[in-house]
Amino acid sequence: MGLSLAELAQRIGARLRGDGVRPIERLAALHEAGPGEVSFLANGRYRRFLKDTRAAAVILSTRDADACPTACLVVEDPYLGYARAATALNPEPSQPRGVHAAAWVSDEARVDETAWIGPQAVVDARAVIGARAFVGPGCAVGEAAIVGEDCRLIANVTLCHGVTLGRRVLIHPGAVIGADGFGLANDGGVWVKIPQLGGVRVGDDVEVGANTTIDRGALEDTVIEQGVKLDNQVQVGHGSHIGAHTAVAGAAGIAGSVMIGRRCAIGGGVGINGHVRLADDVHVTGRSVVYQSVTEAGVYSSGMPLQENRKWRRNLPRLRQLDEMMRRITALEDKLE
Amino acid sequence: MGLSLAELAQRIGARLRGDGVRPIERLAALHEAGPGEVSFLANGRYRRFLKDTRAAAVILSTRDADACPTACLVVEDPYLGYARAATALNPEPSQPRGVHAAAWVSDEARVDETAWIGPQAVVDARAVIGARAFVGPGCAVGEAAIVGEDCRLIANVTLCHGVTLGRRVLIHPGAVIGADGFGLANDGGVWVKIPQLGGVRVGDDVEVGANTTIDRGALEDTVIEQGVKLDNQVQVGHGSHIGAHTAVAGAAGIAGSVMIGRRCAIGGGVGINGHVRLADDVHVTGRSVVYQSVTEAGVYSSGMPLQENRKWRRNLPRLRQLDEMMRRITALEDKLE
Amino acid sequence: MGLSLAELAQRIGARLRGDGVRPIERLAALHEAGPGEVSFLANGRYRRFLKDTRAAAVILSTRDADACPTACLVVEDPYLGYARAATALNPEPSQPRGVHAAAWVSDEARVDETAWIGPQAVVDARAVIGARAFVGPGCAVGEAAIVGEDCRLIANVTLCHGVTLGRRVLIHPGAVIGADGFGLANDGGVWVKIPQLGGVRVGDDVEVGANTTIDRGALEDTVIEQGVKLDNQVQVGHGSHIGAHTAVAGAAGIAGSVMIGRRCAIGGGVGINGHVRLADDVHVTGRSVVYQSVTEAGVYSSGMPLQENRKWRRNLPRLRQLDEMMRRITALEDKLE
Repeated sequence: MGLSLAELAQRIGARLRGDGVRPIERLAALHEAGPGEVSFLANGRYRRFLKDTRAAAVILSTRDADACPTACLVVEDPYLGYARAATALNPEPSQPRGVHAAAWVSDEARVDETAWIGPQAVVDARAVIGARAFVGPGCAVGEAAIVGEDCRLIANVTLCHGVTLGRRVLIHPGAVIGADGFGLANDGGVWVKIPQLGGVRVGDDVEVGANTTIDRGALEDTVIEQGVKLDNQVQVGHGSHIGAHTAVAGAAGIAGSVMIGRRCAIGGGVGINGHVRLADDVHVTGRSVVYQSVTEAGVYSSGMPLQENRKWRRNLPRLRQLDEMMRRITALEDKLE
Repeated sequence: MGLSLAELAQRIGARLRGDGVRPIERLAALHEAGPGEVSFLANGRYRRFLKDTRAAAVILSTRDADACPTACLVVEDPYLGYARAATALNPEPSQPRGVHAAAWVSDEARVDETAWIGPQAVVDARAVIGARAFVGPGCAVGEAAIVGEDCRLIANVTLCHGVTLGRRVLIHPGAVIGADGFGLANDGGVWVKIPQLGGVRVGDDVEVGANTTIDRGALEDTVIEQGVKLDNQVQVGHGSHIGAHTAVAGAAGIAGSVMIGRRCAIGGGVGINGHVRLADDVHVTGRSVVYQSVTEAGVYSSGMPLQENRKWRRNLPRLRQLDEMMRRITALEDKLE
Repeated sequence: MGLSLAELAQRIGARLRGDGVRPIERLAALHEAGPGEVSFLANGRYRRFLKDTRAAAVILSTRDADACPTACLVVEDPYLGYARAATALNPEPSQPRGVHAAAWVSDEARVDETAWIGPQAVVDARAVIGARAFVGPGCAVGEAAIVGEDCRLIANVTLCHGVTLGRRVLIHPGAVIGADGFGLANDGGVWVKIPQLGGVRVGDDVEVGANTTIDRGALEDTVIEQGVKLDNQVQVGHGSHIGAHTAVAGAAGIAGSVMIGRRCAIGGGVGINGHVRLADDVHVTGRSVVYQSVTEAGVYSSGMPLQENRKWRRNLPRLRQLDEMMRRITALEDKLE
């Protein structure tokens, strides 16, 4: 879908420099864009491509406007401008409505007439599918699960019984919401399963990545507040609570009963121990491990640097001697005084 | 399903203090429970809620009985008591039997007449589905796979060809059992696939979490012994063997040919190297990495503490200098003597 | 399928010592093999089993040939010989062709008449399925996705719209190729989704493990070059590029815009930061974290050794004091001079 440059400027809230009549069809990277394409400069490492770009226009900030050889769309945050332009130029395709002949929907389910249930999907008894919701191929919506308006379950998603999704929730393939939490009591060396009686409540505008899992609570619900974004292969344990507008990158593992604040950013592969609390606005960098609660906003890290294997093998045993090293340093200091 | 307090006491093996006639409908947390609800005190951090609880009764140990303002169910292990009470109050719903019209079952498969094959499920040739087994929506049971009595495959589970499950195995959505192990030989820079000829044998009373993967063996079977509990997104490599009643928490990665003993506890996100052996009763805490075998029972750990990013950046280069630091400490000690 | 020993020798390019007429039916481990079975000696730790083996023949290298009590197949690389023998003795079963009655294929899709679409599978509009391709039960092939000749999608695989697979690509159950990358811009504390407009291109002879996820690019394609092998539960972020014949072990997490060279080996559970580049022939050992680019071939590592929990707890706080320790060592050295 094309727009004139002037229309695009208006849609993304940019100040236009140049010929607003130009037609814009697509987005492209700065060094690859050509006529009919708009690009953006959001990251300093690409600045060197600006002077030779052949893009029809570039989304950028005031500081780069003068150096731009072509039309430009000046905004405060070019990355956000890019996001908006990509959305304006790529509207969601209109979606089908109705129940596909190869789907199975329980007579006791309630499917809005504007929703779509795709081939090989299942909607179980007492489930509710809201207006304009999209349930893609192979999805299984469990008993009494609730899918809000404008939700999109792309394909092969599993919602277990009683899970509730707000509006505009986007769930990528293979995600599983509402499987039993890992609750076990030990009876003389044998594990006894603890029935997982809570549910999962997912707020509006949440995105859940491919093959991500969110367990149901043991007694109370697991809660994902509005605007939370979970990447692929994230694990959220039972009874955890993720505050609004927090983002969690791929393969992060959040144990049970974890309380994460609002607007946190959890890096890829981070591990968070059970019962830990993170304050609002805590940023944990990739692959860190969080053993204890973090009570103040800020950026936190753990993890070791990569080394040549040969050197790492020499340093490795020393990690078992750190306390000894510190004691020997202190003894030396005492001796010298 | 409700019980009288006296019936509940009997079902969980508790000593009752108080009025046994009270009806109990549900479980709830200590600070949230009300009439008709039973709660429990298993973790010291919740003791402060005991004196004001409005629960109809509380499951607790002798030491807390006198402080309880309401009826109580005295047991040795309140967490186990809670597990049993949750089970008593929430019996498994009676399940359907038969083959759903939207399932596909091979003529050459053998499905017990008391089993259930759900919509969009597939049961391939020569597969065997035991009595009262539940094969949920979208599950694929491969050729000659065997599903024992009372197994439950919740939804979208894949059992590859020839996998065998014992009795009462519970498999959560998206789990994949019996995919090819990662077996490759190198032929002048190009990988040659090694056919994975073994299978997977899963014992009685095993639980497998959502999106967990257990690979088939290269030559011999991968074995999961009875009573093992695997959380979500666990990976078990080809030819590994997990001893009875071991529990593995979420996102742990177990490479190939690993031998894990009985009653081990593997924390969330733990990584275990190929060919490693763990003795019985080894407990590895969350996110540790196991490079080498552990021959004695005990609790083992690795991992770095979380730090403010600013401080971590200062400490990070030192991790490459540990061996140097130790040598300099030793040199100082030599000089001082 | 059986072969004579002489035929097998020829098929794997081995020099035969012994009676070539012997029939060989199967492969087995050195200490378990019996008549009709061939074994191999590729790893020194199994050498002790050689002298008592009852295998009909053993695949081994020159150095072990004289110690072999039975016939042998002498090769340069016995592990590669084993791979070839396993392939020769276990040819792929002949596969069905056609569209299963319980599959759903769009009228606008193009399915080669020698391909197979299994029960409960979905092939969406404008998808193309090549000659002899196998689309197993429950797979969802999205709009305009292209599946090359001789590809095998085992079961419950999701290919999102527009993904393209080369020839002989093998995809294990639960894998998701082409889900949206994790692209978000921040608008005053609220995340704005960036449409993911790129695709995924997968080369010939790639293998993708169970529940592995490969995201589509934001603007450009995510690329997996020919001969790449990905184990289970690997995550590949948007816009990343993996060079030919690289192998990535289970649960490794590769962020977005990562460039990995050719013939690299990435160990299990490794994490690679966004925008990192790895040169050709880089080997990263299991569970390492790669924060920065690696420009030279070689073996690299990070990670801490496992310790008894009691000792680890003493060493843990010292990891926050490494920089201080180094400064105190230097101060002591200054004092002593």
